[in-house]
Amino acid sequence: MTAHAAAVQVAVSTVIFALRPHEDTGRMTVWLPLVRRIRDPFGGRWALPGGPLEPDEDLAESAARTLAETTLLAPQYLEQLYAFGNTDRSPGERVVSIVYWALVRSDEAAVAVETENVRWFEADSIPGLAFDHNLIVDYALWRLRNKLEYSHIAHAFLGETFTLSELREVHEAVLQKSLDPANFRRQIEGSGQVVPTGDVQTGGRHRPARLYRYNRDAADGTSGPLAWPAAPAQGTT
Amino acid sequence: MTAHAAAVQVAVSTVIFALRPHEDTGRMTVWLPLVRRIRDPFGGRWALPGGPLEPDEDLAESAARTLAETTLLAPQYLEQLYAFGNTDRSPGERVVSIVYWALVRSDEAAVAVETENVRWFEADSIPGLAFDHNLIVDYALWRLRNKLEYSHIAHAFLGETFTLSELREVHEAVLQKSLDPANFRRQIEGSGQVVPTGDVQTGGRHRPARLYRYNRDAADGTSGPLAWPAAPAQGTT
Repeated sequence: MTAHAAAVQVAVSTVIFALRPHEDTGRMTVWLPLVRRIRDPFGGRWALPGGPLEPDEDLAESAARTLAETTLLAPQYLEQLYAFGNTDRSPGERVVSIVYWALVRSDEAAVAVETENVRWFEADSIPGLAFDHNLIVDYALWRLRNKLEYSHIAHAFLGETFTLSELREVHEAVLQKSLDPANFRRQIEGSGQVVPTGDVQTGGRHRPARLYRYNRDAADGTSGPLAWPAAPAQGTT
Repeated sequence: MTAHAAAVQVAVSTVIFALRPHEDTGRMTVWLPLVRRIRDPFGGRWALPGGPLEPDEDLAESAARTLAETTLLAPQYLEQLYAFGNTDRSPGERVVSIVYWALVRSDEAAVAVETENVRWFEADSIPGLAFDHNLIVDYALWRLRNKLEYSHIAHAFLGETFTLSELREVHEAVLQKSLDPANFRRQIEGSGQVVPTGDVQTGGRHRPARLYRYNRDAADGTSGPLAWPAAPAQGTT
C-alpha cells in the first residue's frame, strides 16, 4: 500500500425514494430523506445519509447501518447505484462515495422520523446540497425513471399484489405525468410483466378491482449474479 | 478522517470485451485480456487489468491509464460497471475495487499485444483468477447479455453503420446461440432501434446488403446525467 492509496477515503451514501402526496398539489410524487451536516466541509448544508466505510463492514452493510442510524429506515431492498469519485468533489480531501439506493413503500417510510437535522424533501425541489449530492440525486431519479421502463422496479413501491390503478399511480408519480388508464392497462397487460392473481380488491368506494402480481418468469434487468443472496443488501442493524 | 477510513484502499480495474473467433469452433465469441500478477497476494495468477487509484486522478482516468499501460488499449467508451467491496475479497487488506468495462471493436483490439504477462482469454473458459475477479467477469458477462436486450450496446462492437447480418453476428457471439435470420430481422426492424442509411454494402461474396445505423432518437438505457461529457470516460494517456 502506497502513501497515495491511503490518501483516498471511501464513504458510502444512500438515496432513499418513497412516494408521498405533493405538499401543494396533493398528487403523489417522489420524496427522499436528507440529513443536515453538522461539520465542515459544507457544515449546515443538507446531504444524503451516509458516512465513512468501516474496514470490517461490507458496502451494503455500511449503507444499511448509516441509513438506520440517521432515518431509522431499514429498506427491504438496497441496490448499488454508482461510485462517485471525481477529484474535486470534496474540498481538501479525496473521497470516493459508493452510493446505494432503495425504494421504500409508504408503510416502510412511515417509521422514518423527522428531526431538526433529518427531513424529507420532494425530489424535484431539493435545495443546494453538500458535495456533488445534487448530481447524485439527479442520476438516481434518471435511473428510477429509466428502470421503470424495463424492470419490475415499481414493485418496490407496492405490496405483493396490487391493482392496475395502483401500479399506474406509481408510474404517474415517478414520471410526473398523467397516463391514460386504458392505454396503460393495454401496455402493461401486453408486456407480460404482470399476471392476475385471480383475486379482487374490495372495500373501496369503487367497484372491485382485479389484483395482479409481477410475473417472476419475465426477464428482469434488476438481478443477475449479484442478486440476493449472492450480494446481500440487508444490513446488520 | 479516522484511522479506520485510511485502512480501506481503493483500486480501479477494467473488463474489456472484444469479439474474436473461437479457437476451436471458429465461431465469433467474447474475449477479454487478463494480466498475470507478479506479486502476492495471488502472485502468478491471472487478474483483470487495474491498480491503485491515485489521489489526483478521476476514476475513469485511472481505468484508462492502467488499461493503456498493460494492454495498449484505449477504448472509445468506458463505463462504470460496479464497485466490489466485500471484506474478504483480498487477504490481509481491505480493498474496494471500482470496476469499469468497455467493449472494443476488432480493429481496436488488434493493437493489443500479447506478452508473457498479458493474454486474451475466451470469456467462457477463463482460469481461476485472483481475488473475486471470476465473479466480476461473470457479472460483466451477465450485464453484457442483459443490456443487449434493451440498449444500443451492440453498437460498440460495430462501426457507425452495419448490415443486419453483422448485427446478428454480434448478438449470436454475445448470447452464444444461433438466431434465425428472418426472425432477427423482424424483431430488430420492429423495435425501431435501427434505421436504414439508404446505402448498401458491396464487395463481398453475397449480394449487396442494406446498411443500418442506430436510431439516436430511440430510448436508450445507457446514458443519462452521467453520460459523456458530464463524466468523461476517456483517459489522459
